Order: sequence, then structure tokens, then C-alpha cells
Amino acid sequence: MSKNTPRFRIALVGHGFMGAAHSQGWRVAPRFFDLPVHPEMALLIGRDPDRAAAAARRWGWAESGTSWRDAIARDDIDVIDIVTPGDSHVEIAIAALDAGKHVLCEKPLANSAEEAAAMADAAARAATRGIYAMVGFTYRRVPAATFARDLVASGRIGEVRQVRAAYLQDWLVDPQTPLAWRLQKHLAGSGALGDIGAHAIDLAQFITGQQLTGVSGVMETFVPRRPLLGETSGLSGTARTTGTAGAEFGEVTVDDVALFTGRFTGGALGSFEATRMSTGRKNALRIEVAGSTGALSFDLEELNSLEYYDSNAPETLRGFTKILVTAPSHPYLSAWWPAGHTLGYEHGFTHQAKDFVEGIITETQPEPSFAAGLQVQRVLDAVERSANADSIWTSTSAL
Amino acid sequence: MSKNTPRFRIALVGHGFMGAAHSQGWRVAPRFFDLPVHPEMALLIGRDPDRAAAAARRWGWAESGTSWRDAIARDDIDVIDIVTPGDSHVEIAIAALDAGKHVLCEKPLANSAEEAAAMADAAARAATRGIYAMVGFTYRRVPAATFARDLVASGRIGEVRQVRAAYLQDWLVDPQTPLAWRLQKHLAGSGALGDIGAHAIDLAQFITGQQLTGVSGVMETFVPRRPLLGETSGLSGTARTTGTAGAEFGEVTVDDVALFTGRFTGGALGSFEATRMSTGRKNALRIEVAGSTGALSFDLEELNSLEYYDSNAPETLRGFTKILVTAPSHPYLSAWWPAGHTLGYEHGFTHQAKDFVEGIITETQPEPSFAAGLQVQRVLDAVERSANADSIWTSTSAL
Amino acid sequence: MSKNTPRFRIALVGHGFMGAAHSQGWRVAPRFFDLPVHPEMALLIGRDPDRAAAAARRWGWAESGTSWRDAIARDDIDVIDIVTPGDSHVEIAIAALDAGKHVLCEKPLANSAEEAAAMADAAARAATRGIYAMVGFTYRRVPAATFARDLVASGRIGEVRQVRAAYLQDWLVDPQTPLAWRLQKHLAGSGALGDIGAHAIDLAQFITGQQLTGVSGVMETFVPRRPLLGETSGLSGTARTTGTAGAEFGEVTVDDVALFTGRFTGGALGSFEATRMSTGRKNALRIEVAGSTGALSFDLEELNSLEYYDSNAPETLRGFTKILVTAPSHPYLSAWWPAGHTLGYEHGFTHQAKDFVEGIITETQPEPSFAAGLQVQRVLDAVERSANADSIWTSTSAL
Amino acid sequence: MSKNTPRFRIALVGHGFMGAAHSQGWRVAPRFFDLPVHPEMALLIGRDPDRAAAAARRWGWAESGTSWRDAIARDDIDVIDIVTPGDSHVEIAIAALDAGKHVLCEKPLANSAEEAAAMADAAARAATRGIYAMVGFTYRRVPAATFARDLVASGRIGEVRQVRAAYLQDWLVDPQTPLAWRLQKHLAGSGALGDIGAHAIDLAQFITGQQLTGVSGVMETFVPRRPLLGETSGLSGTARTTGTAGAEFGEVTVDDVALFTGRFTGGALGSFEATRMSTGRKNALRIEVAGSTGALSFDLEELNSLEYYDSNAPETLRGFTKILVTAPSHPYLSAWWPAGHTLGYEHGFTHQAKDFVEGIITETQPEPSFAAGLQVQRVLDAVERSANADSIWTSTSAL
Repeated sequence: MSKNTPRFRIALVGHGFMGAAHSQGWRVAPRFFDLPVHPEMALLIGRDPDRAAAAARRWGWAESGTSWRDAIARDDIDVIDIVTPGDSHVEIAIAALDAGKHVLCEKPLANSAEEAAAMADAAARAATRGIYAMVGFTYRRVPAATFARDLVASGRIGEVRQVRAAYLQDWLVDPQTPLAWRLQKHLAGSGALGDIGAHAIDLAQFITGQQLTGVSGVMETFVPRRPLLGETSGLSGTARTTGTAGAEFGEVTVDDVALFTGRFTGGALGSFEATRMSTGRKNALRIEVAGSTGALSFDLEELNSLEYYDSNAPETLRGFTKILVTAPSHPYLSAWWPAGHTLGYEHGFTHQAKDFVEGIITETQPEPSFAAGLQVQRVLDAVERSANADSIWTSTSAL
Repeated sequence: MSKNTPRFRIALVGHGFMGAAHSQGWRVAPRFFDLPVHPEMALLIGRDPDRAAAAARRWGWAESGTSWRDAIARDDIDVIDIVTPGDSHVEIAIAALDAGKHVLCEKPLANSAEEAAAMADAAARAATRGIYAMVGFTYRRVPAATFARDLVASGRIGEVRQVRAAYLQDWLVDPQTPLAWRLQKHLAGSGALGDIGAHAIDLAQFITGQQLTGVSGVMETFVPRRPLLGETSGLSGTARTTGTAGAEFGEVTVDDVALFTGRFTGGALGSFEATRMSTGRKNALRIEVAGSTGALSFDLEELNSLEYYDSNAPETLRGFTKILVTAPSHPYLSAWWPAGHTLGYEHGFTHQAKDFVEGIITETQPEPSFAAGLQVQRVLDAVERSANADSIWTSTSAL
Repeated sequence: MSKNTPRFRIALVGHGFMGAAHSQGWRVAPRFFDLPVHPEMALLIGRDPDRAAAAARRWGWAESGTSWRDAIARDDIDVIDIVTPGDSHVEIAIAALDAGKHVLCEKPLANSAEEAAAMADAAARAATRGIYAMVGFTYRRVPAATFARDLVASGRIGEVRQVRAAYLQDWLVDPQTPLAWRLQKHLAGSGALGDIGAHAIDLAQFITGQQLTGVSGVMETFVPRRPLLGETSGLSGTARTTGTAGAEFGEVTVDDVALFTGRFTGGALGSFEATRMSTGRKNALRIEVAGSTGALSFDLEELNSLEYYDSNAPETLRGFTKILVTAPSHPYLSAWWPAGHTLGYEHGFTHQAKDFVEGIITETQPEPSFAAGLQVQRVLDAVERSANADSIWTSTSAL
Repeated sequence: MSKNTPRFRIALVGHGFMGAAHSQGWRVAPRFFDLPVHPEMALLIGRDPDRAAAAARRWGWAESGTSWRDAIARDDIDVIDIVTPGDSHVEIAIAALDAGKHVLCEKPLANSAEEAAAMADAAARAATRGIYAMVGFTYRRVPAATFARDLVASGRIGEVRQVRAAYLQDWLVDPQTPLAWRLQKHLAGSGALGDIGAHAIDLAQFITGQQLTGVSGVMETFVPRRPLLGETSGLSGTARTTGTAGAEFGEVTVDDVALFTGRFTGGALGSFEATRMSTGRKNALRIEVAGSTGALSFDLEELNSLEYYDSNAPETLRGFTKILVTAPSHPYLSAWWPAGHTLGYEHGFTHQAKDFVEGIITETQPEPSFAAGLQVQRVLDAVERSANADSIWTSTSAL
């Protein structure tokens, strides 16, 4: 930044795992990218004043508070960054947008398609006033994923025919993993489907440039009762599995596993899986896209590389090329280290902060918009409806 | 073998790609395994006398002929080995069994569940007379796959919860690939589903020791018309894609891609994919099985290894272990080379010949039986019915 | 940190690629780790005042200056962090230590064993006054590398017998890559050997807990003349290859490739390679350690995982386990994201900042000390002497 | 083959592990390749008449005998195939060649450069009479290795600069592995160096098309005493580690590990490792070749693939392409299965039989000739001399 770069003041609402990630994004973005404004970590909001104050100190926010309504009411706040559980998104985001604050909201956008539709409406209204909203599907901003999108868009793999997308985790295999908020329908909306399946859907649609028009799904909860959360402690609020299990048990009201097939606007078929029961897989978001002249394969557990198959190569030389997506000519990489010096999970949040700020300043809708978030929500909704109706093929366009 | 090992005379009906593979199995099995009888490559049957004679010379069969009925009528033939297209299996196999010949029949067992049921009935009748029938799902006999089954059976991964099975090929991506018999419904029954999906189903059921009870499917043909086969040539009859494309076109009447989800008898969920359109994947039959205390992962393109995850290991040491399944203590391996000296595709056929012969001589039903083949056929049938009914969940038990 | 955490003021001398990395380390460490003091990014020193001021603004240093002597003279500076080319290390480090400043110095410690010895002497003197010096072999602090050390130390692989270490880059394959300072002996000391071979040596010694006692080496410069650097630009000072090539050429006075074998104190044999000519390898620091009861394998291009082979496992289950070193129970990881959420290259610098500060405050020599840096320098020196004497085996203990 | 293909009668001398492999090669070659003559498995020679007879029955040789001199004296034998320990090669091979028999001799050619030179002389004399000799470096005939050679020869990777070759096994890690003939200098010549290092040398020279001119080596025996072999049993004569350990111990007189660096005729540098102590590696012959415009990487444990890096690809698309070397257009593959259907270890022996027969019939020296075998022996010899002289750089051209 130059000496005179203007300031842009951020308020973060919530301070769990995503709070730590967003904080790192805001902290680091202006150090590696030439941003048109300097994002200032102004205010952190949490329900408990002491824990909010501790989080603000730890993560470097200037102030802390307990009321998101107060944050929205302040004139000196430009951006509301929402990292609370899904049930509160709709109220906070609409209020913030209506108050003229730019909004970055964690995914999934809401706990239902209805809520998401209301949020998308509010965002559309706000955009006419130069106020922008974006939903936090950060995996789009892993350089290898952005590059995959670029390759598809430039025609490198031809007409897309098949998508294989799976988001595999295993933190629920252990039946002693406690009943965190992510396992309760009224707080989280759905389970593996909405939490990680939403990422798989967004990434598949982002890379292919197409949307899912219909789906057939099946969902399952393998461990129906889990110990209630005894207590959570310290920094470990950042980790979603670290609370201590108590002696009492409660009901898991969301899915452990969701499988579905789908069809894209361009006619391609997709196979999707979202699971927290895939023993041994920690954070494996895998996408493989096969086209008429090539194919791509990506795995978040090895996020610095992308595999690319080019059918136009001579037959003897064909194969999947493991591209280390760390060259200066790859997306986002000119700001970082020399080729071969890898990035990690959190860099997506840095790229998100950059892209969001640039969109606002250049008055260009930053993507994924709330409309895009709503569309993902409609897919989630259709999967659930299909799963509840013997897997019957279900359109994503009906609300 | 000892000097006095008795002879067992085989007749091979058909001599395409599978004929070459079965021939290699019969030739090699007695050289590496101590078989109770010596399989003699006695007679090869083909429709065209010259081509049959050439194939017999090439692959080392003592005689050739053109009538499978004559072969069955001969007293000096003990085994009928059927490697013809699926439409002829039912007639040949039942006639052979009724005539008191042991039968090895290529997969899928038949072109419909009805045919398969008739064959299973004939096999059951024959078994009471000490005559045995087996269906050729050879991938069970890849040592890593057999070993995977052993690990599941011994409880190493606990209760099975999820299966991810995909058989990926790409030989139909090229729209100039000609309209071979495998693309015609009246000859092949179905497309990717029956040809390679059948393997995925059998292997998933074999490894888990469970059967699919219901499925929801979707199928697609991306290239609906293809050039008619001009001519096939030479040895390349072994390769399924090597015929020359002519100038005229015909309709593809089978699926290029079949996706389905399913539920196993033990409650596990499965995700299945069979495709000849997965650009860049040549012969990737991948199975991953996740259980309550471990997981397994296998890929036919790297068939000498199996990945195994043990949840009972200390947390810091957990991960997928890439086991090179080439030690003398692994299935079938004590007969082969020192550890690390790999096997290939064709060794499954050698193991099949060994197991079939041993089953017959010890009067133990060799697996997979025709009943097992029928059960796979019922799954295939249910997938097709589901795909034709908006993916509605469909039981595999109804015929 | 708590409200009352004391401050610790840092001055960074130099602002190239390593300046960016160290800045990120200082910035991020107090946000994820509970440090006993808060490192304050106080002062950045560079030769050119404008570029130093721009770097300070960009990377978040409060002030900038042009004299490292002035920095050392200031009472309010606690730590001198040296990231300049190797020829200046000896003077700055000794002056800083003598002035009572803690010193963190980039590797290799110096351009010769003589310089390194003088620095180690100064560090030993300073330590008696509670002033500490450390050399920046950050790869020790990649969690998988630290964990590898822990496994060896705990006896998991038994007696170490073989080490295979290679640091492979390819940025000099292109003959147009310009003659940067790293290619000039008077500035860099040596080429691939000192720049990246030093990392391989330190990491091999760190993981095994043993030192190299003798070596036999061979070195080569494949491209002896390169274009002089026209100009460097912008942030790209962070990238070591980004200067523009001019029209004139100069002589490369260091090695492109260094190969050597060595023997460790415990009797193990090692094979080492340092190259900037390994086409296609961007930053592949690979270490494989084989012991009497197990083995380890690490590759910096996939730095979130470590492969471990346990000879004590049952024979059928043996294989290399790919451990994703991202669990809370792995080194450094309890401070970071949930399991499976990967770290990148720069995190080693964050861990370095943490460990250095903790060592100082607890008055425990932070490792690697300057004595350790000197020992690496003696190995480098012995390799060069051997390479200059027909690869004759050369002791590392003679200076 | 056609009906009138002439016969070519083979006598196999020896019947250990290599006997089984060569038998499989002779058996299978005429079934998949159109050979100009049909190799007939005529006679197997072994010292013990009963064991020789059993091996002949098992592997399908028409007769057995106990005298290689008798075999050479027979008019109806065309080829002597030598698979005995190295100490007997020189006598048998020269006698056979002088008697006008074509000779295939296992590697390494002999136990010393002197012996190898005498054999090469005999081969040169024989060649003038249309009698050919070849040495059994079968790994050249793994399709991926042959294809690697083709890529280098066609200029795909430019000027070769670096070779990294390692042959890693671990069957000597266990101190109870008995003192087999391969561990005794008077029988085997050397240890890891001659047994598997010879393969690494031949393959590196074959792929690069260059020869090693000088080397610097170091060798080590980590386990100097081992139990004497109690007895060997059954088929397990094929496995080199399967004898039973007795109670008495004897001295290991060969190397467990040999490391060396070397320089090629074209100026490239090479790093070599041959070890039977690389815990966890079963049969990993790895070769990586880096050139001025590309690179190749091969691992025998995944012998169906070759990794290829093309520097001429656009920067964003560069990476190692994992080519599945199973397409009909790859070397040897048009004779085998469809793409993706993998080959195994033994197929190299089938290709060897084919190439040897074709060379003889077309009167073209089949490679690797005895002269090539002698050159490898000279490299082995130079490595040993260097290792015995403090690793001093040693020319390979002096005998």
C-alpha cells in the first residue's frame, strides 16, 4: 500500500473457527496484495464479553463488543463480516445491508432456501446503492481451483460431461465426538450436506461454469445420539471437534452422510458425496471434471496442485499432469513466494479479503454473490427433498 | 505338478479379448500353482473356422472347431469356458451344464435377470451332480482385492458404513470409436453398466461381504451415433477398441455412463459409477470402503497395492498405509516372485483357473457362483429400472 | 496474549525474499501462539531509504532506516533479525551480539567456515550474558519434519542406517535466468550447495540426531555465463528469479549442482544432492531415513504429510503410511486449524519466531544455535574441498 | 505363429528364481508376439537330477539333465540360457559360444571385469559366425523404460544433465535373513552393487544413451555375520530370501549398500544407490533423468507408468505427466491388453525372449550385447576400486 491508502473498517460478528480464519485473511491480505483500501480490523462481536475481548486481543481486533446491532449502527464501520452459525445469518445480513454495510457472510448462506432468498433480495436492493454482499465459499480462491475454472472456461477440456465431487471428513466416526452446534438442525440447517456438501456444489458449479438443474439424493445418520458438549476451552474454539464430551446424550438431528447425483445446465452428469464418516479422510474435497477433450482433478488435501489431462497430446504422451499451482503466472501467486513454495488452507481467506475489497472499490459485484449462495441453497434443498421422497429426481429451480 | 497329475480338458467358446486372457490363465496356472489336475487346452470354438484355427495356434489350443454344441457333445471335454458376447451365455451355459460339463462363464452372467435366473437354476441342478458353474469376476482374484476382503472379514475396519466404487474408462470419449458389439443392447445387454459396472458391484459386494438391497440410478449416452465397424484385424481382436471405423453410422443403444447410489444389507451406503467417458482414466476400478474402525482403498490401475487406514493406531501415526500386496503371505503370492516384483492384469485369470479347478476337484462350489452372478444381474436390472423411473429408489430383490 | 504481555522489539536487516517471510513470521506468531512476550515489528533496515520505507509499509514495520549500526545502537531494540546476503552476516551478527541484542540470522550462517566460527564464538560469549543467537533453518519447523525427528528420537525406526537427502529446484535450467547475487561466490559463498544443500544437511542431521563426520563430493556448473541482472521490480524482490535479464553476460562463480555422500556419527551412510538444475522440481526437499526397524520419507513439496514404515507391523500390513501431519497432537498443530486443514511454506517462519522468543524468555538456547550453524558450514566446506580434490573422502572436523 | 514356423530349441542352465522367470518368458513370448521361430522349451539343466526333473515338469521343459557340457554338445540345441550364479557364467558362456550356440546370460555378466572381458571376446568371435550373445538386463524391456529411452533419443528432454538412480530393496534389514549365495563374494562377485546396482547402471546408460566414464563410491556392510542357510524348500527356490536360517553363522563378504556418483560421456552427473537395506522398499528401481528441456521419472514398483515433464509446455501447464504406458502405441504394448490393463514384473522376460529371437533370426546383434555387459562390469569394478581408495574419482575405462 502507499502512504495514503484509505482505510476500510471491518466488524467481525462471531469468533469460532471461522473467526480465526477470517481474521487471518484480513490481517494478511494488505501485506501481500496492493489493495485499494487498507482493511482495518476494527471490531469483534461476541455474545460473551470476556470471550469476545480475549478473541479480539488474540486475533488483533482493536475493539470488542457484544451487540451486532450496535456494530451495524456505528458510522465508522464499513463491512460486517458474519461468521456465526447459520441460523443467525438472515437477520444480521439483511439488517447490515439495509444499514448500508457491505456484508461478507460465511457459507452456507442460510439454513433454508427461504432465508437465502430473502438475503439475496436484500443484497440485490443494496447493490443498487453500491453496497455489496458476498458469501464465503473460499475454496474457489485456492489457486488450483481458480486455475481449474480458468482451464474449463478457456475450453481446455472441451464440453464438460462428468463431474465427480466428494467432500470427505471423518470427525464423526468416533461415537464420542460430542453434539456440537453443527449437529443440530435448528442451528446448522443440515449436516454434512450443508456444511461441506455446499462447498462441493459451489466448487463444481464454479469450475464448470454450470449449475445443477436437478438431483437425486439419499442421506443417512449413522450415529443418532451423541454426548452433549461438556465444555469448550481456550483457543480451541477454533477447532470444531475439541469440546469435551459430557455424560448426557442428545439426538443428532442432521445427516452424517449425503450422496446425490445431479445434472448440470450443459447436460453433464455429476456424482456428489458429502460425509463426515469417511474414515481416514480429514478434509478431502475432491473434484474431477471430465470433458470431451480433457479432464481435471483436484484434492483439497493437496491443494497446491491440480491434475490436468489433455486429450490433444500425442497418444504416447497422454496422462494426468500434476501441475504445482505455485508459479507466478498462476492465479494469486504473483503476490506470494517463488514457485514450489506452497500455500495452505488459510490463504483462501486472504484471497477472499482481497477480492471482496477490490469488488467493493471497483463497484463490481464480488462473487460468489448472495444470488449464487441462494442457488447453492436451492440445490441443498432439492437434495433433502429428494432424499425424503425415495430419491426421486428433483428440480433445483422450484423453491 | 507331479508326474501323475490327471488331465482336465478345457474347451474355450469364443476368442476375442477375453479368449486371450482365459488362454493365458489356463496356460500359466499349472506352472505356478500345484493343481490337483492339469488343465489341458484342448479345443477352441469360433464361428469362423479360419479365425478359430489361427486363434488356437496362437494361443496354444490343441484343436479348433466351429460348433459349441459339438464341443459339449464330446466325452473328452470336461470344462466349457464361455467368452462370447452376453446374448449367447444363457443357451451355451445351460446346455453345457445339462450335459455334465463344468462351466466357467464370462461376466456379466447374462443380458437380463431372467436369463441369469435360468442359468442359476441350471447351475443349482448341476451342482447336485457334482458339476460346477462359476462366473468370471476375475478382479476378486487380484491379490490386493482378495486381501481387502480378508481385512474386512477379519473385522479390521469394523462395521462397514460407506462404499465408493467407480469403474472409469475413456475409450468412448472419442466420437470416432466405432460401434462395436459392446455398444449394442441386443448383444451386450447394457453398456458401461453391465460391462464394467458389474465388476464394481461384484467387487464391492465381495470385499464388504454384503449385498446391495436397493438402488437409485441415472444413465446417459453422450454420443448417440457412432461409425459402424469397418473391419477388425489381426491379433488386435484382443483389443476392444481396435476395429476400423467405417463411413456409415449406427445408433448406440446402451449407456456411456451409469451412476447410482445403493444400500447394503448391513446398512452401509454406496456410491457407484460406471463410465467409458471418464477422460484420461483407462481402466480405473476404484473401491474405497470406510468402516467404524478403519478404511480401505484400491485402484485397479495400481493393482499391486492396497491402502489401509487403521483408526486404532495412535493418533499421530494414523494415515493410509500403502501396502504393496506382493509379500509371500499375501493371497496367491507365495506362488509368484519375491516381494516387490509386481503382477499384472492377466494374473487374475491365472488365479481364476486355479480356483475353479480346485473347487471342482474338492467338490466345493467355486465362487462367484451363478447365483452370485444372478444377484449382480438383479442389481444391474434395478439400476436400469430406477434410471427409467426418475431415479426412484428400487429394490434389487424383485425380479 | 494477555493484556499485560510485555513487548519485544525487533529490527529486521534486509528485505528481500527472506524479509517477507520473516515479517510474516513475526506478524502471525503472536496471533496463534501464546507467547510470553509480544514481538513488535519495530524497524526495517535497507540500503536504499525509499525501498526500505516501502518495504516497511508493505510488511507492517513501524519504522525504516538505512544503517544496521544505528539499529544495533538503539536501546529500544531487543532483536536483530538478519536476512541479508551471506557475505554480511559475520559483521552484523557479531556486532549485534556484542551490543547485547539477540540475533536471528538466515542460513547458511556465513560464507565460510572461518566466518561461521567467529560468529559461533561471539554467540557463545553472548549466551553467558543471557543473549541468544539462532540460525534460520526453518524447515526443521515444518510440523512433519519436527515429527520425523520425534519418531527417530523415540526409537520408532531403530538404528539409523541410510539417509537419502535431495533438495531439488530447477530455476537455473533456463539459461536466460539472470546472474542474481545467489550466483556470485563473493556474495553467496557457494551455489546450490550453500543455499539449499545447507537445508538438506541441517534437516538430515536434525531428524537423525546425528552429524556428518566425512564426505565425498562432486560439483558442477552447467551454465557458466548468464545475463547480468537488468533491474528488479516491485514486490517481486520476494522472488529470487524475477529480475529482468539484461543484454550483457557475466560469469557464474558458484555450483549449479552438488552431489555428495557422507557418513554420520552413528555409522549411517548418506546420499546428498543439491541442485537448481533438476528440471520440473520446484522446491523438492526430500529426505528418506531408513533404520533397522522402520523408515521415514518427507518431501517439502507435500509438506503436510510424512510417510512412515513400521517393520514391526504384521507382514501383510506393512507399507508406508502417509500421515497427514495436521492433527492437534502433532508438533505446532494444536495452535492451528482442524485436522486436514493444511499449512504452507511460510508457517515454518511463524514457528521459528515462536521458538526463538520462547528460548530467549526461558533462557534456553534456541536451536539451531550458531554452533549448529557452524557445524553445517564445516560440512559445506568439506564438500567443496573434496570436490576440489577428486572427490577424496574428507573429514568435516578439520576447519 | 503360422503353421510352418520353424522351431528353435532352448536349454536352460540353472533353475532358481531366474529360471522361473526365463521359463515364463519362453512360454509366453510366442503366444503374444509373431516370432519368426517358435522357441521350444527343450532341456533344463541342474546339478541335482531330481530337483532338475521337478523344475522341468513344473515349468514345462521337455527334458532335464545335469550336465551343461552335455547340453552344449547336443546338436538339437540352439540356445543356451544361463541363469546360474555369477561365478559360473564365464565358463559356460564361452564354451557355448565356441560350440556355436546362441547365449542368453543373466546379469551381471560375470564376477569380475576380467571374466566379462573374456566373455565379450568370445561373443565378438561368435558374432562373426552369426552366433549371438546377450546379457539379461530385462528392465530395459519394461515398456515404460523403453519408452523413456525413446523420449530421450528423440530429444524430448534436451541435453541430459542429471541422473538420479537408486535400486532399493530391504530383504537384508532383518539380521536373521540367512547367508544365501548372493551374500558370498566368491559366488556373487559383489552384493547390492553387482546384483541390483548393475541394473541401475544399465538402465541409466540405456535411457540416456550415454556411458559412465568415472565414479566415486562408498560401500558398507551393516550386518557382517548372518545365519548359515539351513535348507531351502519346494518352489520357494524361486524366492531369494526363503531358505531357512540355521543355528550357525557365517561372514557376509559382500556389500549391503553401495553409493556412488558418476559422470556420463555427455557431461551429465549421476547419483547412484544400490541397497538391500532400504527399509520398506521392496523392489524400487527408480530413475530420474533431468535434461535441458524436460525430465523423466520411473519407479519399478509402479512399472506401468512413466512421469514426463516438458519444459516447452506453457508455464501454467507444466508438471510431471503420469503416462500410463499401456497404450497400443507404446513399446511392446500392441501385443498385449487394451490400454489401462497393466503388465507385471515377468513381462520383461517375455519381451527379452522375443527380442533375443528376433535379433538372432534377423542377424542383428541383440542388445545388451556382452560388450555392453562388460562395460557395466567395468563400472562396477571402478566403484569397488574407488570405495577401497577413500572414494577417489576412478575412471571406468581402465580394466
